[in-house]
Amino acid sequence: MNGGTDTTARLWRNARLTTFDPNRPGMGTVERGAIAVRDGRIAFAGPEADVPAALRALEPIDCEGRWITPGLIDGHTHLVHAGNRANEFEMRLEGASYEEIARAGGGIVSSVTALRAASEEELVAQSLPRLDALMAEGVTTIEIKSGYGLDRENEMKALRAARKLGELRDVSIRTTFLGAHALPAEMNGDKTAYIDKVVSDMLPAIAAEGLADAVDGFCEGIAFSPAEIARVFDAARNLGLPVKLHADQLSNLEGAALAAAYGALSADHLEYTDAAGARAMARAGTVAVILPGAFYFIRETKKPPIALFREHGVKMAVATDNNPGTSPLTSLLLTMNMAATLFGMTVEECLAGTTREAARALGLVDEVGTLETGKWADFVLWDIGQPAELVYRMGFNPLYRRVRRGR
Amino acid sequence: MNGGTDTTARLWRNARLTTFDPNRPGMGTVERGAIAVRDGRIAFAGPEADVPAALRALEPIDCEGRWITPGLIDGHTHLVHAGNRANEFEMRLEGASYEEIARAGGGIVSSVTALRAASEEELVAQSLPRLDALMAEGVTTIEIKSGYGLDRENEMKALRAARKLGELRDVSIRTTFLGAHALPAEMNGDKTAYIDKVVSDMLPAIAAEGLADAVDGFCEGIAFSPAEIARVFDAARNLGLPVKLHADQLSNLEGAALAAAYGALSADHLEYTDAAGARAMARAGTVAVILPGAFYFIRETKKPPIALFREHGVKMAVATDNNPGTSPLTSLLLTMNMAATLFGMTVEECLAGTTREAARALGLVDEVGTLETGKWADFVLWDIGQPAELVYRMGFNPLYRRVRRGR
Ligand SMILES: [Zn+2]
Ligand SMILES: [Zn+2]
Repeated sequence: MNGGTDTTARLWRNARLTTFDPNRPGMGTVERGAIAVRDGRIAFAGPEADVPAALRALEPIDCEGRWITPGLIDGHTHLVHAGNRANEFEMRLEGASYEEIARAGGGIVSSVTALRAASEEELVAQSLPRLDALMAEGVTTIEIKSGYGLDRENEMKALRAARKLGELRDVSIRTTFLGAHALPAEMNGDKTAYIDKVVSDMLPAIAAEGLADAVDGFCEGIAFSPAEIARVFDAARNLGLPVKLHADQLSNLEGAALAAAYGALSADHLEYTDAAGARAMARAGTVAVILPGAFYFIRETKKPPIALFREHGVKMAVATDNNPGTSPLTSLLLTMNMAATLFGMTVEECLAGTTREAARALGLVDEVGTLETGKWADFVLWDIGQPAELVYRMGFNPLYRRVRRGR
Repeated sequence: MNGGTDTTARLWRNARLTTFDPNRPGMGTVERGAIAVRDGRIAFAGPEADVPAALRALEPIDCEGRWITPGLIDGHTHLVHAGNRANEFEMRLEGASYEEIARAGGGIVSSVTALRAASEEELVAQSLPRLDALMAEGVTTIEIKSGYGLDRENEMKALRAARKLGELRDVSIRTTFLGAHALPAEMNGDKTAYIDKVVSDMLPAIAAEGLADAVDGFCEGIAFSPAEIARVFDAARNLGLPVKLHADQLSNLEGAALAAAYGALSADHLEYTDAAGARAMARAGTVAVILPGAFYFIRETKKPPIALFREHGVKMAVATDNNPGTSPLTSLLLTMNMAATLFGMTVEECLAGTTREAARALGLVDEVGTLETGKWADFVLWDIGQPAELVYRMGFNPLYRRVRRGR
């Protein structure tokens, strides 16, 4: 039936589903489940016994009792970058100070220098193995930020490279313009002048070319003040672009509340966020993106206030923060283990955080992130006995098959 | 030349080597290096310019400037086990106490029950994916302990399964009898009677069948006392088997010194080892096997005394401790990152710890663990710019090619 051109028309049967359908309790688990797909979208997901008559004749695929989750979503990465900072990592272990590393050309400056020196093609080539590692674990949607270019030409190059990755691989890419990531050396300490360039030069050009799906900033003593971030957010609002924020990672500048005040899709990191920030996020529907990789890698000790987020009903996503300086992490499964082990997030929170809530943090929750009728048929079949195994193991990939848009 | 039957006769040229040859400084790095192989063994490893005339005509393989390390060695695992403890992990995150988990059938008891219920074939089938994950990252030698059987029949079954893995895969397996791992329920708390069985029943049978390359114990309040362990070690000595020990993990019972007194190959874990223990280990040449996976997974806060080991010249290995209860970890690359990030071990220490020092901890340092003439040609080609990348990344596998016994 529905023959002809729809090569995605299938009934994935004899499966166990974690639908993350908010109308079902917990993980939205369905034992003896099935997913019907047509035109790359979910036509039905639920108990196999309830498959509508019109879908029962779809070509069946026997999942042999395997678990199916929504396709995983990595909602916060800096995946497009050049070079790496292994040298700096090695120096630090040998006792070098931050000054010594800086003198040796380390720190974010080195990533900016490397990205500026790389062509778009080189950026793509260097980023593909990282993307492939994430996809091999079932990632079907990934967010990628700019922020190592720090001028119009190089920020646009990075965003174009990110878009290009989505053409080269079977994955959905969401791009985020992070011009307000760090102050480039050529600005000689003049943050105001740099923010002028972000809002008047870079952002309009990027918006005109449709290169960014959202706008982000780094609100921190070592980066930009709340007032400077507000200028970026105002400019984004004028262009109709949603915002997100690196907030309260190293200190409490009330970044979470600032993000919430702008109706941000997400506030990310949040180690120092307080109850007022959590309340504001809950009210605004701003998702907390938890990034345990950076916490682990920089040996942070202050944990994000998971209990506060639960108490106030803030939705939590979990992401790799893949970046060369503070989180050279390309495993979303390991990231979930870190969120559980380091922060005490539950299995359900970790899995919701890399599916439904990650989709919400990207403004995509109507399209992906759960197994519900009408959404894209992005899902993963796993060789596991129970969903908790996806969080419990470290450095093991039980993926059986990754399906995107029904294929 | 050397034609005919030796299909390993090759000159691996245009490579960068970390030989870990103790006669070279640091990692024993050789830029513009080459490895000549004959009959599965290294006939030369060093600067390409120094390849002896007799080996220059070997069929060349161009390594295209890639880095080569010795094959990785995972020197401490409980890889042969049945089932997993993801359920227990999930319960703990939801706030269950140890008593509640025990009542639900959790803890080591569940692993013993599962192993006893599994056939040797089932054990092999369940263990293969874990072994494959380690091998995919360049592991060429792996130690596997028993210790979930806790009676003669089941301990022997586990050791036979471990040996079988070495027949099914291109990897060297070293087996360790860990009868003194835990007291089985049927002994009704009688540790003395159980140790009687270990030394008089299990160990002789295992030795007679050649099933164990070494003997191990768990010296801890919740396991066995130093005096009980000494009985096991005496029995091992009488049979000519080397010993190792799970020592000082949760408290200081002076397990490191006990191991050293018996000339143990290694003492493992060592979070609570003191200066006297480190001195004794140095004197005896007992290797410290550092196990960051268990430290991380059980959220331990007391770190092993790396500085003391350095000060006293104790050699350090790094291993996964792969096991279902406290370290469901199947990535030796990630383990190195944990040793660096959590314990401050240097890149050189991490890499030596998974090559030369891991070989030493298994009593194999004359056969594998470095790139030196006469040793087995076990090595790995990596797609990296510098060795530090193997430690710096998390959840990324840059393996290009794994070579064991020259193939
Ligand atoms: Zn970030
Ligand atoms: Zn162990």
